[in-house]
Amino acid sequence: MTTSGPLLVTSAANVQLKELKRLAQDSTAYRKQSRIWLEGDHLCRAAVERGVQPELMVFCESAWSQTGHAWSGHGGKQLIVSDALWPGLSALESPARMGFVIAMPAQPVLQKDKPTVVLDGLQDPGNVGSILRSAAAFGFQQVIALKGTAALWSAKVLRAGMGAHFGLQLHEGMLAADVGVLDIPLIATSSHHGEFLHEARLPTPCAWLLGHEGQGVSAALAALATHSVRIAQPGGEESLNVASAAAICMHASATFKSSGA
Amino acid sequence: MTTSGPLLVTSAANVQLKELKRLAQDSTAYRKQSRIWLEGDHLCRAAVERGVQPELMVFCESAWSQTGHAWSGHGGKQLIVSDALWPGLSALESPARMGFVIAMPAQPVLQKDKPTVVLDGLQDPGNVGSILRSAAAFGFQQVIALKGTAALWSAKVLRAGMGAHFGLQLHEGMLAADVGVLDIPLIATSSHHGEFLHEARLPTPCAWLLGHEGQGVSAALAALATHSVRIAQPGGEESLNVASAAAICMHASATFKSSGA
Repeated sequence: MTTSGPLLVTSAANVQLKELKRLAQDSTAYRKQSRIWLEGDHLCRAAVERGVQPELMVFCESAWSQTGHAWSGHGGKQLIVSDALWPGLSALESPARMGFVIAMPAQPVLQKDKPTVVLDGLQDPGNVGSILRSAAAFGFQQVIALKGTAALWSAKVLRAGMGAHFGLQLHEGMLAADVGVLDIPLIATSSHHGEFLHEARLPTPCAWLLGHEGQGVSAALAALATHSVRIAQPGGEESLNVASAAAICMHASATFKSSGA
Repeated sequence: MTTSGPLLVTSAANVQLKELKRLAQDSTAYRKQSRIWLEGDHLCRAAVERGVQPELMVFCESAWSQTGHAWSGHGGKQLIVSDALWPGLSALESPARMGFVIAMPAQPVLQKDKPTVVLDGLQDPGNVGSILRSAAAFGFQQVIALKGTAALWSAKVLRAGMGAHFGLQLHEGMLAADVGVLDIPLIATSSHHGEFLHEARLPTPCAWLLGHEGQGVSAALAALATHSVRIAQPGGEESLNVASAAAICMHASATFKSSGA
């Protein structure tokens, strides 16, 4: 009888490690592999709390000996990577010492009348992750990412999202035309058109249309907008970060609803 | 008579290049060198528009031949770096092809009654830069960064700030006790204490106290707060990004003022 403990990888040529590295470092590899790399205990715990089961738990050797026992009981195979090889695995600026591989969630069904955020070509992973957090906080559980937007399940967007992914219905690779099927008001933000956000009677539910950091919302998406609002910027500078603008808009919707009853 | 064109650096051992590299890559080197590296034409134009004169304009060789002429007339010496050496200069993920070295601005005098933002140990350069943009947009021109906060004039904070730096009075390396001299209400945000922001009668002018991404405001700073508010998060998740929370708070102040007259 043999006791099969977790596999310890000590060779950079290990096939499983190479696949894992691709998954962790190539921001769109999850689409080919149909599985996702969650790096760090905060994200892994957020996934577990939402009922997600890991396919594989991966630890660096020293983390395994210190904290591995805390993760036993979550199912899934385990893989230990030597401390020497570990730093080559992550694509993050401050790599974590453990992670999960989980199966790609099933594509959700688009709901026509749910509060929605549409991401049109947003490229900065930190901004995208931050917007997902705001969406989860303010009850915009449906997120539609048009082609050209940062890959939602990439390691960097996941880290910035801090677990928000698991409370949202995420639609990737969509076209502007897909947004047209929504049966709710579509609100675009502008720096110089439309009512001021804080004076506007905001429709509920609605979809917020958020555009590329530099170029804004594309013409195709803008043509679908039913409302346009702008954020007052009395300081004289007109250059809010898109994630900041998104947070202000979603907060306004969420609190308008609760005070407008 | 000699015509002295700009110097072309082709050796990695060049002393001026090595100093420049330190300035660009070490986030606190500007404090030792008393000069700042501005990378990219957007930032450099923002500085010029605010009347900042470059000490040195630096171009990669190909950028110089294409766009160097557009920068003539802004004064300052010029330095050209060979295309081969250029990629080693920047610390940014997507390096620009030109930059300025400017003198460190004089330390401004702390104003007791100006709308203020206090940054207490915020470490993510992207968040700090984003908050500076919001501060400029919403009229919070005085920013106090306590020790432990990301270096405000580092290349990453500058990039994320998109030029906002030049419209603000920035105070670095301060202590919580320094905040105590402010003669305006100090408002802390909390996830579970205080009035809801959208229902609060916000004092104007005020200072917003913003804490570390994970740990929040320190006990020493929290003890100085005169008000506490929280942001309603009806989506059920309680984890806004700090720059998003900051934007929501400053926007609320800015629009409360304009509607409360």
